[in-house]
This record gives sequence, C-alpha cells and structure tokens, in this order.
Amino acid sequence: MSKDDQQPLSALREQIDALDTQLVELLAKRALVTTQVGLIKSQTGMPTYVPEREAQLIASRRATALAQGVPPDLVEDLLRRIMRESYLTQNTQYRCTTSSGTKVAVIGGKGALGKLIVSLFERSHYDVIVIDRAEWDQAEQLLSDVKLCIVAVPIKQTISIISTLSYLPDDCILADITSVKHAPLNAMLNVHKGPVIGLHPMFGPDAPGMVKQVVIICHGRQADAYEWFLQQMITWGAQLQVSDAQVHDNDMAYIQVMRHFTSFVYGAHLHAEDPDLSSLIAHSSPIYRLELAMVGRLFAQDPNLYADIIFDNSKNLALLKRFRDRFDDAIALFEANDKAQFIEQFSLISQWFGDYAKTCLVDSKQLLLKADDDRMLRK
Amino acid sequence: MSKDDQQPLSALREQIDALDTQLVELLAKRALVTTQVGLIKSQTGMPTYVPEREAQLIASRRATALAQGVPPDLVEDLLRRIMRESYLTQNTQYRCTTSSGTKVAVIGGKGALGKLIVSLFERSHYDVIVIDRAEWDQAEQLLSDVKLCIVAVPIKQTISIISTLSYLPDDCILADITSVKHAPLNAMLNVHKGPVIGLHPMFGPDAPGMVKQVVIICHGRQADAYEWFLQQMITWGAQLQVSDAQVHDNDMAYIQVMRHFTSFVYGAHLHAEDPDLSSLIAHSSPIYRLELAMVGRLFAQDPNLYADIIFDNSKNLALLKRFRDRFDDAIALFEANDKAQFIEQFSLISQWFGDYAKTCLVDSKQLLLKADDDRMLRK
Repeated sequence: MSKDDQQPLSALREQIDALDTQLVELLAKRALVTTQVGLIKSQTGMPTYVPEREAQLIASRRATALAQGVPPDLVEDLLRRIMRESYLTQNTQYRCTTSSGTKVAVIGGKGALGKLIVSLFERSHYDVIVIDRAEWDQAEQLLSDVKLCIVAVPIKQTISIISTLSYLPDDCILADITSVKHAPLNAMLNVHKGPVIGLHPMFGPDAPGMVKQVVIICHGRQADAYEWFLQQMITWGAQLQVSDAQVHDNDMAYIQVMRHFTSFVYGAHLHAEDPDLSSLIAHSSPIYRLELAMVGRLFAQDPNLYADIIFDNSKNLALLKRFRDRFDDAIALFEANDKAQFIEQFSLISQWFGDYAKTCLVDSKQLLLKADDDRMLRK
Repeated sequence: MSKDDQQPLSALREQIDALDTQLVELLAKRALVTTQVGLIKSQTGMPTYVPEREAQLIASRRATALAQGVPPDLVEDLLRRIMRESYLTQNTQYRCTTSSGTKVAVIGGKGALGKLIVSLFERSHYDVIVIDRAEWDQAEQLLSDVKLCIVAVPIKQTISIISTLSYLPDDCILADITSVKHAPLNAMLNVHKGPVIGLHPMFGPDAPGMVKQVVIICHGRQADAYEWFLQQMITWGAQLQVSDAQVHDNDMAYIQVMRHFTSFVYGAHLHAEDPDLSSLIAHSSPIYRLELAMVGRLFAQDPNLYADIIFDNSKNLALLKRFRDRFDDAIALFEANDKAQFIEQFSLISQWFGDYAKTCLVDSKQLLLKADDDRMLRK
C-alpha cells in the first residue's frame, strides 16, 4: 500500500479514536447516574430489576436507533451489556426486608455460591455468621440465636449436615440450596420443627448477584414465617418460581444425570481413541467447537461432585439403562442401513420438541455470533 | 413508593435517556467513518480484517477505560459488538484479486451458503453465474468459459454433481465447499484435468460474511493457478488453514458423527420417556439449558442431512460401536457402584483434555453471561 492510501486512512482512524474516547466518557457518566439510581432503590427497598422498565427502555432506544439509521439490534445488544454492568455497580447496598441486624447463618459460606449469599446478606444489613469447616465444632453455640440458617454445602454432605441441626431455635428458618430438592427438604422437615424451605438457585457462582436470576422455591412448612426471606431475594432482583420437590428432581435427572453421563462417556471415548485434540478443534466449525466445549468443560471440574450426582440415586441407573437401550436401537438402525426409519424417528422427535427446537436453533446461532465477537472457543 | 421517592428517580432516568440518545448518535457517526474506511480498503485491496490493528485498538481502548474508571471488559465487549456491525457495513464492495469481470460459477448458488458466496463474488466485480436446479439442464453450456466453478450443493449430491463436470475448460479451477473433504477432492481430481481445490468454510450461513472466519484448504492440483482465489478469500477477511483431506475427515467423524448420533439418541430417549418439556426447561439452570438446547437444535433441522452425515461412511459404524462399548463400560461401573473407578477414569480423561478443559469451562461461563444479557435460552 502506498503512502497516499495510508494518509486518509490515518485521518479516519483518528476520528474513530476520538469517537471511542467519547464512548468511554459516556459510559463513565452513565455509571455515575445508575449508581445514584441504585442508591435510591436500596433506600426505598425497590427491587433492583424491574422487567417492565427494562423492556420499555429497550423499546424506546430501538426506536431512537431506527430514527438515526443505526441497527436497533446493535443498540439493544450494547444496552443489555451496559445494563449487566450497571446492575453490578447498583448492587452496593440493599434494603433489609426484616429487622436490620437479624442474625443469619450460612453453613458452607466459604464455598463459591455460599460466598455470594453471605455478601448479599451483608450488603442488606444482616448480622451474618459464616460456618465452614473451621467453625463446625462451635456450630451449636453459633446457631443458638439465628433467625435463618442456610445450608450451602456440597451435595454429598447436605443430608448429613442437615441431620445434625436438631438444636436450631424453633422460630429459626431452615433452608438449603442443593441442586436436588426432595431428600434435603425431607431431611430438614424431619430434623427441625420450625419453618422450612428448599431453594435451588438456577445460576452459578459466576452470576453477577441475583439480579434477573431464577430461584426455585420448594415450600416446606410455615410459609408465613419465611415471607421476609422471599421478599429479600426479590429485593436482590431474583425471580422466584414455586415447584414440587419430587417433580423438580425427576426433571433434573433427565437433564443433569443424562447429560453428565453422556459427556463422561463421550470424553472416555475420545480418550480411548486418542485423536489429536488440537487438530480436532482446528477442524471443527463453531457449533461443533461449542459441542466439544460442553464435553471438555466437565473434565475441568471436581469428579467427586459428578460421581455424587450420578451415583446417589438408584432411579438414575434404571434411567441410564433405558438410555443405553435407545443407543443400541439406534446402532441397529445404522447396521441395517435403515435411513428411512432414522428419518421417520427423527421427525417424531422433532414433533415432540415442537417450537422449542426452533428456538434452540435461533438462540444457539445468536450465541455463536457472540462467541465469535470475542473469539471464544477458538483455541 | 411515595411521590417523593419517585421524583429524584425520574430526574435520573431522564439523564440516562439523554446519555443513551448520545450513545446512538455516536454510533451513527462511527458507522459513517468506518464505511469510509471500508471504501478505501476495497479500493486498495487491503484485507477487511487486520488482527493486529484490532488487537491494538482494543488494548488502547482498555487503557482509556481504566483511566476513566470504566471496567475495561465492558468497553472491550461493546467494541467487539460494534466492530462486528462495522465489518458488515464495510462489506459493500471488495477489490477483485484477478481480472475484473472474470467468470465464476456457483453450483447450488441458491442454497444458504451458496448465496453468501455468490454475493461476495458479485461485490468483488466478478461475473457470477448461479447454477441451481432450474439451470442444471444448460449447465454444460453455462460453464463453457468459466474460470472458477464452485460446487456448493448438499453433501448428499456433491459426488454425483462433481462426477458430471468432465466438460469444464482445462484452465478452470474446480472447488467444493462440502463438510467432508476426502471423497469430493478425489472425485474432482478424477473428473477434471485442471486446477482443483477442496474448501471447508468453518462457519454457517448466519455468519456476517467471511470476516474473521476460518476456511480449511485441502490442496488438490496446480496450486499456482488458484492463488488469486485464495487471495480473494483473504481480501474478504478469511483466515485460511491448510489441512490434509483424510486427517480432516477423521477429525470430523469424532466431532460431527459422534455428536449428531449422541444428540439423536438423547432426543429419542426424551421422546420415549416423555417428561414435560416446559417443566424440564424451567427446572434447568443456564448450563443445562444450553446443553438441552444443543440437543433440541438438531431436531429443527433437515433429517436427511444428518442421515447422510452419519450413514454415508462405513467407518462411522465401527466408531459408534466402540462408542457404545464405552457406554456399556460406564453403565457397568455404575451397576457395581464403583465410584472410585469412575473418579479415576474421570481424572485420566481430564489429563487427556489438558488445559483445553479449563478453557472450555471459562469460555462457556462467559458465553452464559452473554446469553443471560439477552435472556436467551429462557423460554
């Protein structure tokens, strides 16, 4: 390229630099304003996340974009990303939905999700007691006057920890956040006479707080007594969803157990076949890289957790054996080279999935475009 | 909430509205400048995507953000999204890397990916002939003086279409874009005496052009003769990656075939068990919703395509049978309640995946945060 070509390009790039600097300044100003909004919300106890206000804001910005000849989808994507950040900065303090200074204990409060819950309570003016391994010897004494006790230990220890809590004050709320609900809920009802509630927060420890997150609620006993706790989660921005513990657990088996098992076998197969992994990744288009990543991510995690999820329920074995039978059926189709039957079965399954399949296709494509922006899944 | 609370909030919201309007104006101005950049690039034949320039721009904006107290990750995310859009608007015209008006034919040019390729050539000043079903009768005549013939038909028809192309001029480049490479490449070498090249574009028809996208190159014959075609793809922003056709196909089997087969069996199992799908989705945390979506998306697509991918290779059956054996092995572990062995195997597989597993874990978490911004995967 000649110098003549380079010159107008340099001038244009300086203009882009100047505009981007303005963008950063604008973001700084916006953060100042939203921090003030957060302050007012926390003082008045207004929920952090108001779906209607957000939908209205997005619609109005899309209209502005259209009028200015800017793609509305671009503006919506940018605003949603900015809002994620502003919920974070708004999150400094929350209103306490019961008496300020109420004593709350989090057993396992040094774990990833436990820490998040401790921080939310602390920022809502509760007196929070963290009970982890080091404090376990004095648990009975520490818990003698708490109003809410949340069990946030690994799934394997949940039941045994709960079964020791016979000494809780009768007016204390006992809650857990395990990803299975039936057995822990029963264990809590058995060991404790007071209010009991089972929770399943539908998000990982990476989530920026509880804003917009779904929390599954399995009612146990004396719902009136833990109403303030539900209100507190709503103040944090959570969306509560009531469920039956047994229905919840059956559903989880179809997802968690089948998924982990499938990914485990997939990984085992790759390991045994031993192809060149980097070549595999290089030759995969984005959707396959995402599929491979969903297998790979399992093996960066604690095997004990997965052993517990898969092994600790006799129903799971039966479910997985039926799954294996379907695997055999499909292999048989393949051996008979029966494409017609494969296509017929495929169509029946499509009908079963209904509109959801289409939604998945659209969402996964959108998600891959986002992964592409950041060059994720490319290594 | 009282009117007193509402008032300062309204004032702050007006400030946010004003700032967001400025944001839209800024985006409109930036698009004007980047369109000019695109124009200069297309006139001088500079590649649309220059990785170093982009990395440098991001680094400099992150520094500005830090200085202004704005989270650098926020600024980087926003800029990458803005850049995706600006690559789109820059894409109006490209420099032609050979003689302007060179005749190019795209067989299957009305398909999703075919259309994209046709559009790229048209915007680069080629004379593009689209050959689809309606034009097939006159193919021989239409192709009599083309310099490049690209086969972009469904995988099932690739070989039979290629095998008819014995009449191409000797100096014509013959290329295909099928997702398997060994058999099509051999078929092209057999039927045609001139330059031959196999391509596998590693992106779907949703990708915004070829900017930043990987295209796998399997060299066939007379590489010098198709150098301008490779340069054209680089001008479009593609990243070319040379591969051996057989290695490519073996890798694809581990990914494509195993994945589709697994998802098919997973879907078949859910269909047979018939749980309430909406309850399943409601009770799944984000990562499980993503896993379920990866299964669901399969069934929104054409079963014939998947039947072709899975059935059309006898090696696939052997691979899937070994996969089934690993499934049985894992079930046996489970029946023997042998957690220790499960954990040991898990650890060995982890070692096999190495750092990739951690990368997947981090990337998938980032991706879920992005899905969350848009409330994707929530339905």
